[in-house]
Amino acid sequence: MTHPEPDGPPAHGPSRRRFLTGAGLLAAGVAGGAVAGGAAGYAIADDPAPVAKDSVPFYGQHQAGISTAAQDRLMFAALDITATDPKQVALMLGRWSAMAARFCAGEPVTSAPTKPSQPPLDTGETMGLPASNLTITVGFGPSMFDDRFGLTGKMPAALKPLEVLPGSSVIDPAISDGDLCIQACADDPQVVFHAVRNMVRAARGTAVLRWSQLGFGRASATGAGQSTPRNLFGFKDGTNNIHADNATALDDYVWVGNESDQDWMAGGSYLVARKIRMEIESWDADFLSDQERIFGRDKSSGAPLTGKKEFDTIDFGAKGDNGKPIIDVNSHIRLAAPEQNIGTKLLRRGYNYTDGQHPGTGKLDAGLFFICFQKDPRSQFAALQTKLGKSDLLNEYITHVGSGLWACPPGLAKAGDWYGKSLFAGQLK
Amino acid sequence: MTHPEPDGPPAHGPSRRRFLTGAGLLAAGVAGGAVAGGAAGYAIADDPAPVAKDSVPFYGQHQAGISTAAQDRLMFAALDITATDPKQVALMLGRWSAMAARFCAGEPVTSAPTKPSQPPLDTGETMGLPASNLTITVGFGPSMFDDRFGLTGKMPAALKPLEVLPGSSVIDPAISDGDLCIQACADDPQVVFHAVRNMVRAARGTAVLRWSQLGFGRASATGAGQSTPRNLFGFKDGTNNIHADNATALDDYVWVGNESDQDWMAGGSYLVARKIRMEIESWDADFLSDQERIFGRDKSSGAPLTGKKEFDTIDFGAKGDNGKPIIDVNSHIRLAAPEQNIGTKLLRRGYNYTDGQHPGTGKLDAGLFFICFQKDPRSQFAALQTKLGKSDLLNEYITHVGSGLWACPPGLAKAGDWYGKSLFAGQLK
Repeated sequence: MTHPEPDGPPAHGPSRRRFLTGAGLLAAGVAGGAVAGGAAGYAIADDPAPVAKDSVPFYGQHQAGISTAAQDRLMFAALDITATDPKQVALMLGRWSAMAARFCAGEPVTSAPTKPSQPPLDTGETMGLPASNLTITVGFGPSMFDDRFGLTGKMPAALKPLEVLPGSSVIDPAISDGDLCIQACADDPQVVFHAVRNMVRAARGTAVLRWSQLGFGRASATGAGQSTPRNLFGFKDGTNNIHADNATALDDYVWVGNESDQDWMAGGSYLVARKIRMEIESWDADFLSDQERIFGRDKSSGAPLTGKKEFDTIDFGAKGDNGKPIIDVNSHIRLAAPEQNIGTKLLRRGYNYTDGQHPGTGKLDAGLFFICFQKDPRSQFAALQTKLGKSDLLNEYITHVGSGLWACPPGLAKAGDWYGKSLFAGQLK
Repeated sequence: MTHPEPDGPPAHGPSRRRFLTGAGLLAAGVAGGAVAGGAAGYAIADDPAPVAKDSVPFYGQHQAGISTAAQDRLMFAALDITATDPKQVALMLGRWSAMAARFCAGEPVTSAPTKPSQPPLDTGETMGLPASNLTITVGFGPSMFDDRFGLTGKMPAALKPLEVLPGSSVIDPAISDGDLCIQACADDPQVVFHAVRNMVRAARGTAVLRWSQLGFGRASATGAGQSTPRNLFGFKDGTNNIHADNATALDDYVWVGNESDQDWMAGGSYLVARKIRMEIESWDADFLSDQERIFGRDKSSGAPLTGKKEFDTIDFGAKGDNGKPIIDVNSHIRLAAPEQNIGTKLLRRGYNYTDGQHPGTGKLDAGLFFICFQKDPRSQFAALQTKLGKSDLLNEYITHVGSGLWACPPGLAKAGDWYGKSLFAGQLK
């Protein structure tokens, strides 16, 4: 046994449902007074996770799943905390940390055999499957910093809840926000489901699932190496994104530095998620020329309408024979371009989704589960969305239906560290 | 251009929404009187589809996606026909046939360039992606054989709607049945979504989406070759399934032969789908020994409780020290075993699913989208489910919430053939 392992559910009890109440989960850690010990009651081993095949390193300065090259599958979950004792929340976060480290190394909740008279500690559906490049990214929502846990003084200014931005009038609270978020990404949906399922299980009695979303994406297999994936409008999405190997851009736009008003966020990043429904039936009836005008790009190649290849520099000044700009003044790429937004960039990491058909209309319910990471959502996502929401030609075909903002703390340094350790410092006496 | 290509939406018109009404789709084929010509108004080329990388042959004696080794991803869709003219239905089926042949070869709806003043004929999200072993399997539900299309005399006796079987009391009509079904399977969710989306698009004005379901599964990567995938209870599922290379078993249990009361079904098969919700929170709280008693197998290895390895023969007569059968009399493997069911077998091809959380309870909504194929559902699925629904120990943890039955006609022989050609023969004068 080389990894920290969460305490299991009780080996026996008057009711097999006892585990569901969370009482069993908490008994060992809290009753043992181990919460303030650092890792919330877990037996800690110091050795790092072995490097499994197709695995992304878990420990490090930053959480994985942010600058990590996007995997093919997503399960995103938002949870609300039902507990009132910060120790209980810390215990759960410690448990999550230990589990996440193991899952990302392709291991189950525990390597110890389950006793026959115990519920299995791991739900089992990934037995025999590889790590599949799983990453788990955890974030804290603005609501974590109300008066429940004594964290009001630790709320970063940048975590101020998003205002109702243009184009956001029909956002549904039932698929928005949440005290905590888990972004699980991997190359296998069974692996992301397993991670979220077991973390939700480990949260029982402390937090409950608020909403969740599955997503998919796939970089094109053609061309040299992987190329830009396509969204469900059929256009390449992410051509000018910040790339994982651009450390300067990541420092400039994504990672919170020492300038933050809250030390615990240094090395972290802010996650904005928007569930953007696409009116794909209407889109599919639009002319190709209009679709390309709306995006400002050629649909097939992804080249800007002023260029020939996907990565050609966009010429915003170029005019057509009719004297009008070739890149429409309200096209998506013009409104979103850093050159048109005092250099503003963010790291996008969105996934396509379909939830089957839309209740009532029978239309396919599908779109983009947009995720982005940034230093400061006020000057990055909010500023861009304010502009896009007002003028983007794409708005005729999209509807923002869900929204959320979370502060993702820095990476865990090593086994024994846990999500929010420095955030909760001082609350666990 | 080597493949039949559906007629496109109108190149121009008073409204770009004209396509949505379906009027445009139909104008060319029906007005041209081409429906009865065999392929419902399509320009036909005789050459077979080229063999794309990672592709499953489309033309053949049987539809692909039945005995084909299960791919990793599923999108299943059920549609209801809104048209009343059988010619219009045949036109749509001809269009589907041509599209399906192209998609399964990794090609878009058409290889002809779209005119700028036209909506793109293909929605585009798979541009650059390989065929990904896509298979498309089409079926006709019992409701197709009411008095709308003159097909009442062609309804096979085996397509009699399933009775309310034990364990089916809460089946929701909104996610059950449908005049038509499409089972799209591939190794990429973007590819299965694209197939269903474009087929639904091509059905506009003739049929509408009734419900749909995404699914996933993954054979374990360990062991010699691919091994048995696990369901979301964490158990291996499909150990004793009929395998693709067992031609005798396929002929005995899966493919409809010449004995059918309806010639048009020779070479076809009957598809039963059941959406089976798993009460995973309750399951996760059950003891390992109880989980294994319910299935009759070891959770980790998949071995029957009377054996050591997954494929060991089950000893139904073996008794434990307490004098009781080691394989519980109401365990899942005993009740489902052919040896206990006068040899009855069926070909299972199910997928795991999660739809996020269950509305109201907040529990994870997940389970098994069970699909099976057989010669005759009355003596196969219905007989087995009658037994399982009454006594299976698993019933405490599962709920059948959706159900459907479709007759999947034989495979298309070559370009120009279409789904239901012999079914509709005589209705297209």
